[in-house]
Amino acid sequence: MSDLIGSTARMVGGLKASRGLVSSSSRLVPEEVPIAFSYAGSTHAVMMATPDDLEDFAVGFSLAEGIIEGAEDVVAIDALEAGDGIDVQVTLREMTAEALTARRRRMAGPVGCGLCGIESIEQASRAVRPVPASPLCVTAQNIACAMSQLNVAQDLNRQTRAVHAAGFFMPTEGLVAVREDVGRHNALDKLVGAVLLGGWNPAQGAVVVTSRLSVEMVQKTAALGAPMLIAISAPTALAIRTAAQAGITLVGIARDEDFEIFTRPDRVAEGVPLHV
Amino acid sequence: MSDLIGSTARMVGGLKASRGLVSSSSRLVPEEVPIAFSYAGSTHAVMMATPDDLEDFAVGFSLAEGIIEGAEDVVAIDALEAGDGIDVQVTLREMTAEALTARRRRMAGPVGCGLCGIESIEQASRAVRPVPASPLCVTAQNIACAMSQLNVAQDLNRQTRAVHAAGFFMPTEGLVAVREDVGRHNALDKLVGAVLLGGWNPAQGAVVVTSRLSVEMVQKTAALGAPMLIAISAPTALAIRTAAQAGITLVGIARDEDFEIFTRPDRVAEGVPLHV
Repeated sequence: MSDLIGSTARMVGGLKASRGLVSSSSRLVPEEVPIAFSYAGSTHAVMMATPDDLEDFAVGFSLAEGIIEGAEDVVAIDALEAGDGIDVQVTLREMTAEALTARRRRMAGPVGCGLCGIESIEQASRAVRPVPASPLCVTAQNIACAMSQLNVAQDLNRQTRAVHAAGFFMPTEGLVAVREDVGRHNALDKLVGAVLLGGWNPAQGAVVVTSRLSVEMVQKTAALGAPMLIAISAPTALAIRTAAQAGITLVGIARDEDFEIFTRPDRVAEGVPLHV
Repeated sequence: MSDLIGSTARMVGGLKASRGLVSSSSRLVPEEVPIAFSYAGSTHAVMMATPDDLEDFAVGFSLAEGIIEGAEDVVAIDALEAGDGIDVQVTLREMTAEALTARRRRMAGPVGCGLCGIESIEQASRAVRPVPASPLCVTAQNIACAMSQLNVAQDLNRQTRAVHAAGFFMPTEGLVAVREDVGRHNALDKLVGAVLLGGWNPAQGAVVVTSRLSVEMVQKTAALGAPMLIAISAPTALAIRTAAQAGITLVGIARDEDFEIFTRPDRVAEGVPLHV
């Protein structure tokens, strides 16, 4: 077992100034490690991340990147220390690996990302697939419960006060999975992997995050196929448009039983006007 | 003048649940737009960002990427709408452009980023240059003043409550520049560009940010050559190691006159032990 893999926080010393008095201090800070994802010996990307739950991370990242369609496309995941970081080598099943090779060949170019501005922009703002039909309906109490359970489950954040969390909430079972990371995108990738590997049905729950809702958070939720995304914070305009396109219910500014619904309010009990 | 460029927020409608009562609501949310940076017609990267202060953004991004050494390496910046995003075309002076072409040729590979895991990891955690010697010394009052001036200057965040800010604080002049963005890395890139284009001496001030301190925030501050980085929130372990390597004073958890110093306390008046 390596020292780097699974090491999530570290005690550091410093000075603390409080009401004009300076004293030496110590605090737990989160680790942040370059993590490379490699397929067939070739690195796809390097993320700065918290080095735990690497299997979940690999599956969630691969799904978000469109490399796999589900956890069954991954044959093996090996995390190896490499220099100051971790190289996560993902072995895909044959058909998936062939599709990736073909895609990489199409994308290969002589310089940089090899694409002109418009192509790159179109790739960044690519259309999302609508999420599958879902019977999910949550109440204001469910939302308050999801946020409060997420808060309680943030072990690393309780230690460091500097990491994000993503959870999966099912009205019938509560918060079934939580993942944390120094990066909010990574936390969500890890959660997506955890939901797929844990065998929960994405259509029957909501993704709950501690962070702001930029478009990538919606894209990753859509890739998972979850019909609802709930956040403490506010969405961007593009996140709202993308959620509408994917048919995802976007709930923001969720604090206790107060929240705002930006898209598809029909999945929130209180969001359906009562016709008395 | 285009519709996209300079458009920072948009009013959206939704439903608001408060104390069990649901009503229709509206709120300003930040725009988030794919912004491509192109050099000599080839795109280097696409960022999801707030589409304003694009000249600053282009200069700061180019510096952080190691493409330029200073604002004088940029000859022209043209921002053009392209599809759903903006293509920022940066014209470099001849020698800089030739160096970039040579570097891209070295990096070109047949697949993905074309690097093996270890090379990619080494590139991600590359060593930073030590910042130039600096006479900067700040007091606890300076730090409180910098944070409070940053708070007041966040116009877009006051409207949307969902964007980050980065500022440049000089003890003698106060907060001389502030930039905002949906992404904290982008906000800092824009600030770096604003400092370079505005002609302030980076060695004579501190970078102040509203966000957590991950390693990239330290790398960008080091690229600017500023000797101090102050944040509301906590740093990662790698951010602390990188700040130590660059000789940057890292101040976190800065709230009013209370804060913690993680590296190089000699630039904070209260950080120097008094030998009475």
